Amino acid sequence: MAGFNHLFVPGPTNVPEAVRQAMNVAMEDMRAATFPELTLGLFAGLKQVFRNETGRVFIYPSSGTGAWESAITNTLSPGDRVLMSRFGQFSHLWVDMAERFGMDVDVTDVEWGTGVPVEIYAEKLAADKEHRIKAVFVTHNETATGVTSDVAGVRKALDAAGHPALLFVDGVSSIGSIDFRQEEWGVDCAVSGSQKGFMLPAGLGFLSVSQKALAAAKTAKHFRCYFSFDDMIRANDTGYFPYTPATQLLRGLRVSLDLIAGEGLDNIFARHHRLAEGVRKAVDAWGLKLCAKERKWHSDTVSAILVPEGIDSAEIVRHAYRKYNTALGVGLNKVAGKVFRIGHLGWLNEVMICGALSAAEMSLRDCGVKVTPGSGVGAALEHYRLSDRPAIAKAA
Amino acid sequence: MAGFNHLFVPGPTNVPEAVRQAMNVAMEDMRAATFPELTLGLFAGLKQVFRNETGRVFIYPSSGTGAWESAITNTLSPGDRVLMSRFGQFSHLWVDMAERFGMDVDVTDVEWGTGVPVEIYAEKLAADKEHRIKAVFVTHNETATGVTSDVAGVRKALDAAGHPALLFVDGVSSIGSIDFRQEEWGVDCAVSGSQKGFMLPAGLGFLSVSQKALAAAKTAKHFRCYFSFDDMIRANDTGYFPYTPATQLLRGLRVSLDLIAGEGLDNIFARHHRLAEGVRKAVDAWGLKLCAKERKWHSDTVSAILVPEGIDSAEIVRHAYRKYNTALGVGLNKVAGKVFRIGHLGWLNEVMICGALSAAEMSLRDCGVKVTPGSGVGAALEHYRLSDRPAIAKAA
Amino acid sequence: MAGFNHLFVPGPTNVPEAVRQAMNVAMEDMRAATFPELTLGLFAGLKQVFRNETGRVFIYPSSGTGAWESAITNTLSPGDRVLMSRFGQFSHLWVDMAERFGMDVDVTDVEWGTGVPVEIYAEKLAADKEHRIKAVFVTHNETATGVTSDVAGVRKALDAAGHPALLFVDGVSSIGSIDFRQEEWGVDCAVSGSQKGFMLPAGLGFLSVSQKALAAAKTAKHFRCYFSFDDMIRANDTGYFPYTPATQLLRGLRVSLDLIAGEGLDNIFARHHRLAEGVRKAVDAWGLKLCAKERKWHSDTVSAILVPEGIDSAEIVRHAYRKYNTALGVGLNKVAGKVFRIGHLGWLNEVMICGALSAAEMSLRDCGVKVTPGSGVGAALEHYRLSDRPAIAKAA
Amino acid sequence: MAGFNHLFVPGPTNVPEAVRQAMNVAMEDMRAATFPELTLGLFAGLKQVFRNETGRVFIYPSSGTGAWESAITNTLSPGDRVLMSRFGQFSHLWVDMAERFGMDVDVTDVEWGTGVPVEIYAEKLAADKEHRIKAVFVTHNETATGVTSDVAGVRKALDAAGHPALLFVDGVSSIGSIDFRQEEWGVDCAVSGSQKGFMLPAGLGFLSVSQKALAAAKTAKHFRCYFSFDDMIRANDTGYFPYTPATQLLRGLRVSLDLIAGEGLDNIFARHHRLAEGVRKAVDAWGLKLCAKERKWHSDTVSAILVPEGIDSAEIVRHAYRKYNTALGVGLNKVAGKVFRIGHLGWLNEVMICGALSAAEMSLRDCGVKVTPGSGVGAALEHYRLSDRPAIAKAA
Repeated sequence: MAGFNHLFVPGPTNVPEAVRQAMNVAMEDMRAATFPELTLGLFAGLKQVFRNETGRVFIYPSSGTGAWESAITNTLSPGDRVLMSRFGQFSHLWVDMAERFGMDVDVTDVEWGTGVPVEIYAEKLAADKEHRIKAVFVTHNETATGVTSDVAGVRKALDAAGHPALLFVDGVSSIGSIDFRQEEWGVDCAVSGSQKGFMLPAGLGFLSVSQKALAAAKTAKHFRCYFSFDDMIRANDTGYFPYTPATQLLRGLRVSLDLIAGEGLDNIFARHHRLAEGVRKAVDAWGLKLCAKERKWHSDTVSAILVPEGIDSAEIVRHAYRKYNTALGVGLNKVAGKVFRIGHLGWLNEVMICGALSAAEMSLRDCGVKVTPGSGVGAALEHYRLSDRPAIAKAA
Repeated sequence: MAGFNHLFVPGPTNVPEAVRQAMNVAMEDMRAATFPELTLGLFAGLKQVFRNETGRVFIYPSSGTGAWESAITNTLSPGDRVLMSRFGQFSHLWVDMAERFGMDVDVTDVEWGTGVPVEIYAEKLAADKEHRIKAVFVTHNETATGVTSDVAGVRKALDAAGHPALLFVDGVSSIGSIDFRQEEWGVDCAVSGSQKGFMLPAGLGFLSVSQKALAAAKTAKHFRCYFSFDDMIRANDTGYFPYTPATQLLRGLRVSLDLIAGEGLDNIFARHHRLAEGVRKAVDAWGLKLCAKERKWHSDTVSAILVPEGIDSAEIVRHAYRKYNTALGVGLNKVAGKVFRIGHLGWLNEVMICGALSAAEMSLRDCGVKVTPGSGVGAALEHYRLSDRPAIAKAA
Repeated sequence: MAGFNHLFVPGPTNVPEAVRQAMNVAMEDMRAATFPELTLGLFAGLKQVFRNETGRVFIYPSSGTGAWESAITNTLSPGDRVLMSRFGQFSHLWVDMAERFGMDVDVTDVEWGTGVPVEIYAEKLAADKEHRIKAVFVTHNETATGVTSDVAGVRKALDAAGHPALLFVDGVSSIGSIDFRQEEWGVDCAVSGSQKGFMLPAGLGFLSVSQKALAAAKTAKHFRCYFSFDDMIRANDTGYFPYTPATQLLRGLRVSLDLIAGEGLDNIFARHHRLAEGVRKAVDAWGLKLCAKERKWHSDTVSAILVPEGIDSAEIVRHAYRKYNTALGVGLNKVAGKVFRIGHLGWLNEVMICGALSAAEMSLRDCGVKVTPGSGVGAALEHYRLSDRPAIAKAA
Repeated sequence: MAGFNHLFVPGPTNVPEAVRQAMNVAMEDMRAATFPELTLGLFAGLKQVFRNETGRVFIYPSSGTGAWESAITNTLSPGDRVLMSRFGQFSHLWVDMAERFGMDVDVTDVEWGTGVPVEIYAEKLAADKEHRIKAVFVTHNETATGVTSDVAGVRKALDAAGHPALLFVDGVSSIGSIDFRQEEWGVDCAVSGSQKGFMLPAGLGFLSVSQKALAAAKTAKHFRCYFSFDDMIRANDTGYFPYTPATQLLRGLRVSLDLIAGEGLDNIFARHHRLAEGVRKAVDAWGLKLCAKERKWHSDTVSAILVPEGIDSAEIVRHAYRKYNTALGVGLNKVAGKVFRIGHLGWLNEVMICGALSAAEMSLRDCGVKVTPGSGVGAALEHYRLSDRPAIAKAA
C-alpha cells in the first residue's frame, strides 16, 4: 500500500530518526572493556527520566510485563497482601499476575473510565493497623481507557495512615510522557518499557526502584533468577549485565535519553498535554465522548473514544488500517467494540496528530458515524495554532 | 523538534521503507562478475516506466539537470536551432542551458500558469519547411507552477508538419507519477531523476532515448565525455559503467522499480490524480486559486497555490517549516512570494496529504490568510472517502 | 579506531546484511490484522531449525537465560528432582538457576574441558526406579570451554532405563550451527537465543518444546506469568502475543530464517565444521592446546584455547580489543586467565576466520607467546583451500 | 554466500559504521532555511582535507570523472595546449577526455609502473617560452598500477620555468589517504570523489580549486552548465546548490569529515603507509613483484601485484570473489591479466588487511601460484606488530 503507515496505537510509538540511525549497528561484545562507557550513562539517564534520585534502575531484555513481574518477585513473598484496583485491561492484567504469583490480592473494581480509588485505598490503609498490606499498586495511566490516576494522592494516603507498604506504579504508558516524580511521590517500584515514551522498539523493560524496595528484596521469598535484582546489581555496578543484554536497543536508548534531555522533561509533558488537548477538542467537535469519565481522568498519552450505539469500534479500527494505512487502537476486554483509541505519546507533533484525526474522521464516516468532515481536524489545528508551545526544544 | 518532518516539496519525495532498507548497504565492487545481475534488470525496468520499447535508458550519477545536458550534448551540435517555450523556473533553466551550449534557441514565452503553446509550436514547425529546427523541447510538468503540458499534442504537431525534429521532454516531475508514453508519443529524449516519482534520494539522472536519438548521436558535434552515450553504451551492454556508478542508489532503484511494477503504472497515475484532486478541492474550500490557469494545466504531482495580495508566500513556507516541521515548496522566480507549493508525488497516501493540508491551514491562518479551519482538510478527506480508489496494489 | 571491529566472541555473532536491512524498520502495530502473516511463519520456521516436528516454539522478549527459566517454571514444580552436570560457566549458571528455583538438584561436577557424563547419567537413571528424577539437563555446547556434549547419548540412556524424565537441552550456542535434532533425540525443552546461530541481535529467547513438555506444563506448580506457556499458546495460536513483542527482531528473524533455509541446515553444519577445523589446525600450528580435552568434545562453534603458564589470557583479549579492534572471548570462572576464546559461529566465512587468527597471532606474540608468525593463519587457509566445501548455498 | 563480503578494490572503499548510520535518512528539503547549517560546514571541512586555504571546493552529484570534466571545461578553452602523461588506465582516460574536449594535448607515454615524468615536464615547460601550455596534468595516484607521482616536483618544475600554466591533479585515489597539499604545492584543480579516502558511497565528485583557477574560469570558453563554477558559486555562497544535491551523501560526508578530523590527516597518512608496508612485505614474502617499478613509485593506497608468467590474474580475482567472497581489483588495459590489485585505502585496519592477504594467498595457491601458506600474512602481521602506530585516534 503506497505511502507510510501511520502509527497511532498507544505503543509501540514512532521511533525518532536519530534513534533509528543509532540502532543500525553491527553487533558488539557486551564484555568489552569499553562497554561500561555506554551502560553507566544509561542507568544515570534513566534515573533522571524516572526522577529517581536515590534508588536505581534495572534494564531487562523483556517487555513491561517482565518489569511488573520483577517488581513483584523481588520485593514480595507468596501470600503477602497487596492492595490493587481494576478499571481497564492493563490494571486487570497486573491483578491477574499478582494472583498467579500467590499474592493475597485485595482488589477494588471501579468503573472503567475512572482510575485508582484513592479514597478507598486511604480507608483500607487507615484500617490496616497491623500493616498486613505489603504493597499498594497504582496503574498510573490505564492504556485501555485513557485514564490517568493520582499517584501523589495514593502517596498522601499512605503517609496519612503512616503505612509502610511499598508503592508500586505501572508507568508503562506515562513515564517520559506525562508528569511522574518517583522520588517526590515515594514510589518504590516504577515500571516502564522501551516502546512508549522512550520512543524505542519494544524489547526493554525498565524497573526503577527505591532504596526501600532494594531493602525489601533482601527478605522477599519469591523465586527469581532472570529478573533477580541481586544478579543485576552485581553486574550493573561494573557496567555489565548478568546475561547478554540487547545491545542494539541500548545504543538506541542512549540517543533516546539524549533527545529527552535535549527537549526537557517538562517541555515534553507540556507538548503531550497540548497535543492531547487538540485530540479532545476534536472529539468534542465530532460530538463524541471519551471513555474517561471526567476531566481529571483524561490521559495526555492516549484517548479512548466511545462510538455511538450500534457501531462496532473494532470495525473502525480495521477499516482505518486497511483503507487508510493508519493504526489506531482497538477496545480491549470490557470496552471491546465500544471504543477506539488514539495513542498520542512519544515522538509526535501537531501535523502527525492532524493526520491521525483525518484518518479517524474518514473511517468514522465510512463506518456510518455522522461526524462533520473537517470538524475534528479543524478544532485540533486551531487549538495548536493558538495555544502556547513549550519553549522550542534544542534536540533534533 | 519533536516528531517527524513532513516532506511535501515537489521532490525530493518520501522514500519508501523498502527502498530505504535496500540502500542500507555495505559498498560493493562495481566490476564484480555478478554486478550485471543487478544492472541489466534496472535498464529493463526503467524502460518499462518510461514506456520506452525500442530505445534505451542511461543512468548517470547526476541530478536531472545532468540528464538535460546529456540530451543536448549527445544529439545536437552547436548552432542547431531548437524550439523551446518558457513558463516557469524549470522551463526557464532548460532554455538557459540550451543558450549556454550555443544552440540557436527559438523560445516562446507564455504566461506562467499555462504550458507548452502547442499551436505556436505547430505553426513554427509547419513554417519550417527546410527543417532547420533540430529539436523541440517540452517541459512535461513545470514544477514551479504546477502545470502539465500536452506532449502528445506536440507529437501531433510534428507529425502534422511531417517534421523530423527530435522531441525532448523534461519529465523530471512527471515520469513514474503521471501518464507518460515515450514510445507512443515518439519522444526521443526523456529526462528524469531519481528523487521524484522514482522515490529515491537525489543522485541519479535518467535519460531515456529513442533509436532516432541514438542515431543523431553519431553525428552530433558537441563535446561530451562524462555524459557520452558511446562510453555508456559500450559499458552498459555488458552490465557495467564507464566510471564508478552510485551502487547504493542502484540497489535502491531495484526495489523502487519493484514497487512501481507491483502497484502498476496505471494505478500509480490514478492514485496521483485522486490525491491531487483532494488538494485542489482543499484549495477551493479555502477560497484560494491555483497558479495553473485552467483545469487542463492542472498537475497531478504538484500544486502551486496563489496567496492573497499582501501576503508573502515565502513567509508561509518558512513558518510551516519552523513551527510545524513541514516542508512546503516556495515560489520561484516570477512567482516568488506569490505562490506556495504542495508536492503530491511519489510515496504518498491520503493521510499524508491531510497532514500537508493541516500544516498549510495552520500556516495560512497564522500568517493572516482567513481560511476556515478544517475546510481544506475536510474537503479533501471527503473526496478521498468517496472517490474510487485504484485496485489495491500488491506492493508493500 | 579506524576500520571495522572484528567480532569473534561466541555470541552475539555477526548480523548478515540482509537481516540488518530488515531490522531497519519503522514501528508497527502488533495487533494489526496483518501481523499474523509475519508471526505464524516464524513459528513454523523456527520449528524447522530445531527439527521439532510435533511440538511448538515460544518466542520471548528475553535472553536465552529467560528461556532457561521458562523451561523450568513451566514444566517442573518446586522440590522436583533434576539431574544436572557442571563443566563450565554456563552449565554452572543453569545449575544455579535450578537451585534458586527450589529444585532438588542432583549435580555431577566433571572436569572443565569435558562434557555431560553420559555414563553417570545412565547409571543414575537406571538406579532411579521410582522415577523421582523429573528432568535431565544437558548443556549441548558449553560456550565457556568449547565443549559439545552428546545429547543423543543421554536420550539413549533415558530410553535404556525406560525413564520418563523430561530432557532439557541448552542449545544457545549450538542450535542452528551444529547438528541438533529435537524430534529424533526426544528433547522436551530446547533453549536457544537470537544472538548466536540465528544471527540476530540479542533480545529474543527461544524455547522449543515437545508435546510431553506441554503436558507437563498442565500440572507444574511453579509460579509463572511472563514466561507462561498458557498465555503464549492462547495468543500465539492466533498469531499474536500476550504482551508487546519485539517486532523489530521478529522482522529480522524472518530474514534470518530465510537465510538458514536457503543455505540449508546441513550445509550450515558442514560450514561450521570446516571453519572450526581450520581454527583447530591453527591452534596446533601455534603449538597450543584447546581446553576441550578430546576430539569428541571439540565444539564447532567456539574454541577455548589454553595459553602457556605465566601468561594471562585476559590480557591477550584486552590487547586484541584495544590494539587490533578485535573482540575475542575471555576465560570465565575456573578458566579465567587460562583460556581465550574464538567464537566461530553464525554468519562467517574463511576470510573472516583468517582475520580472527591474524588478530590472535599478533596479540599472542605481543603478549609474549612465541607462536610462529603466519603459522596459524597458514594452516587454516590451507585447510580451507583443500577441504571440500558444502554445495554452494543459494542464500545471499 | 555466508559471511561478509570483503571489499579490497581501490574504491569504492568500506564505509564506516558512523557514516552508514548517518546516511540512513529520510529525505529532506534542499531549500530549507536550515540547510546551509549542513552545507557551509562541508565546504569548510573539504578544504581542510584538500589543504586548500585560499580557494574553494565544489561538490557535484557525479563520479570523479565528472570532476575531471569540470576542471577542464571551466578553466580551459578548446584548442588550449595541455601537458599530460600516460602510464595507466586512469591517466589514459584523462588524456582521452582532454582530447575529446578538443584540447591540444602534448602527451608523454611512460612505462606503466612509473609515474609522471617530472624531468620531461620540466624540459617542456622550460622550452615553452611563449607559455602556450595552459595546464599541466598530474595523476597523483595511478590506481591501475599502484603508482604515486611527485606533485611537488611538478610544481617545482613550473616554478623553475616561471611558467604560469595551471596545475591539475587527479587525486581521486590519494586525497584524504596520502599526503596532498593543495596550497603548498600550488595545485589549481584537485579532483577527488566520495568513494575512496572519503569513505562514502560513490556519487559525489569533488573539485577543489585555487583562486587562479577561479580567475581562469572567467575567460574559459568551453561550454558548461551542469559543472559550471558560476552557477555553483552563486548558490553555494548561500549554502544551496543550483540543482538538487545528493542530500543523503551530504549527511554522510558530514560524519566522514568528522572522522577524518578526529583521526587527523597526518595520522591517516601514517596509517595508510603502515598498512601498505605490510602488504608490500607480504608481496616480498610471496616472492612476487609489484607493478610499480621502484620504491619511490609505491602507492600507499593500492598495490598492483604482478603474477608469474602463464597465470591469468583475472582468474585469481574471479576466484577470490566466487570462492572467498573477497573483491580484489583486476588488471586494466595494458596490465590486464598481468596484475591483480589490493586496495588498501579508507576505513581499514590491520586485521582487515590480513583478511585480504589471506584471501589472496588462498586464491594464488588455488590458481597455481606457489606461494608459501601463511608467508604473506605472517610478514604483514609481524610488520604491524612491530611498527610504530600513529597516536591513537579519538574518532570512532
